[in-house]
Amino acid sequence: MDQTPLILVTNDDGIQAGGMEALISVARRFGNVVAISSREPMSGMSHAITIKVPLRVKLISEEPGLKRFITNGTPVDGVKLVFNSLSNRKPDLLLAGINHGSNSSSSVLYSGTMAAAMEGAINHIPSIGFSLLDFDPAADFSASARIAEEVIQYVMERPLPDGVCLNVNIPALPSPEIRGIRICNQANGYWKEEFEKRTDPNGAEYFWLTGFFHNREPENGGEGTDEWALKNGFVSIVPINTDLTAYDVMEKMKSLEYSQTGPND
Amino acid sequence: MDQTPLILVTNDDGIQAGGMEALISVARRFGNVVAISSREPMSGMSHAITIKVPLRVKLISEEPGLKRFITNGTPVDGVKLVFNSLSNRKPDLLLAGINHGSNSSSSVLYSGTMAAAMEGAINHIPSIGFSLLDFDPAADFSASARIAEEVIQYVMERPLPDGVCLNVNIPALPSPEIRGIRICNQANGYWKEEFEKRTDPNGAEYFWLTGFFHNREPENGGEGTDEWALKNGFVSIVPINTDLTAYDVMEKMKSLEYSQTGPND
Repeated sequence: MDQTPLILVTNDDGIQAGGMEALISVARRFGNVVAISSREPMSGMSHAITIKVPLRVKLISEEPGLKRFITNGTPVDGVKLVFNSLSNRKPDLLLAGINHGSNSSSSVLYSGTMAAAMEGAINHIPSIGFSLLDFDPAADFSASARIAEEVIQYVMERPLPDGVCLNVNIPALPSPEIRGIRICNQANGYWKEEFEKRTDPNGAEYFWLTGFFHNREPENGGEGTDEWALKNGFVSIVPINTDLTAYDVMEKMKSLEYSQTGPND
Repeated sequence: MDQTPLILVTNDDGIQAGGMEALISVARRFGNVVAISSREPMSGMSHAITIKVPLRVKLISEEPGLKRFITNGTPVDGVKLVFNSLSNRKPDLLLAGINHGSNSSSSVLYSGTMAAAMEGAINHIPSIGFSLLDFDPAADFSASARIAEEVIQYVMERPLPDGVCLNVNIPALPSPEIRGIRICNQANGYWKEEFEKRTDPNGAEYFWLTGFFHNREPENGGEGTDEWALKNGFVSIVPINTDLTAYDVMEKMKSLEYSQTGPND
């Protein structure tokens, strides 16, 4: 039996994205790679799955140690396709990214990259999502590749708990200027939207979603959070739960519990 | 100033869904309602947002205490539109549903209904998602409406902590057979997919996503989990975190932290 690790690489920026190429290169140092990506960018698709239209998937290239697929589906569809149809064994590791743009703080909830990683974690595959804070299609991923290699090495040696994946965000700095790595919690923040209202040539109104991130952390930026780490030149790593239960709140809500008394009680 | 509570009602099954009508009726007992829904069903859209196509939104009816909008956007788009464009004040409460079908266990991650509730929680609006375990478009929502009223009353009197919303799932039973309410944690489970492969008239392969839920809880069904409660005739309520940080894992990963020593240190 082949003992070479099998590594699933995916992203949400589409097959042409430079960040995905960078991640495939790193992944190949650790094992055989199955890469799947959507034809079109899928940013903001979160954990969406495709149920209304047929899923298409195509093997677009194959060489020793690397198969590449494209699909019309979302990042989570792609992960499900590899887990259940495109590979005869479960991957040993799932890597998503390297995303073009941040997935820190509450952006984790909108991110197709992190949804792919969470889908891996639900399926008990060690899973890591990587994002570089640079939207430039020609962004330099060399520092990110070095960081990715370090984090992958760590996870291969010390498996993550079941149901937990990692959200790794990397500041847009040259390698020597990255100050290190911090294990962080998700900063308390949200996207404040401003809908830009326009009128189409037929006189009908439409909107474009625009917005800016609003950090609710205190003035110092909330030391210990991912936002703080990134602002201070550190790579942020947030371990992410796929069990969303707010356990501390459960106890406080017990007074809402009751049992119906039936006619025979 | 109008002190009547303003309640945002949304769903992911589209404007025609009976569950949304049931929830609007309940909501009106508590305040003025702004309802927004997508024209088409948006099940499985999770926390997706629309950034590639223009968003359309239309006021389709208005009467005292109730405004209804439709949009081409996702459930989360709809919530953002109300928060930022369609209402001159922030809602006091967000209600999503009543969903046709369960959103228990890890289904919470795929659900547009629960994503709408989570979007509310990120924005510090008390938010509740309701789901009935019945996919029938003609499902009977009378028991669900009674439960929804109880839960809304509770939340209006005892506000939820910021960033936490509720995932309420209701068994498909007549009201007298519902055994009560349980505060639960999210059951450990996942969707095991089976992609149904077909060939289109042009000879090209395509897939339909099908699958079944696989519960990883022990044989007794994991007492205390939402799956257990529902199987035993109880309404399950899981408090849901929008902060996904796995705090217990952070400490264990500290050995991955380091600080770069610069040339001047």
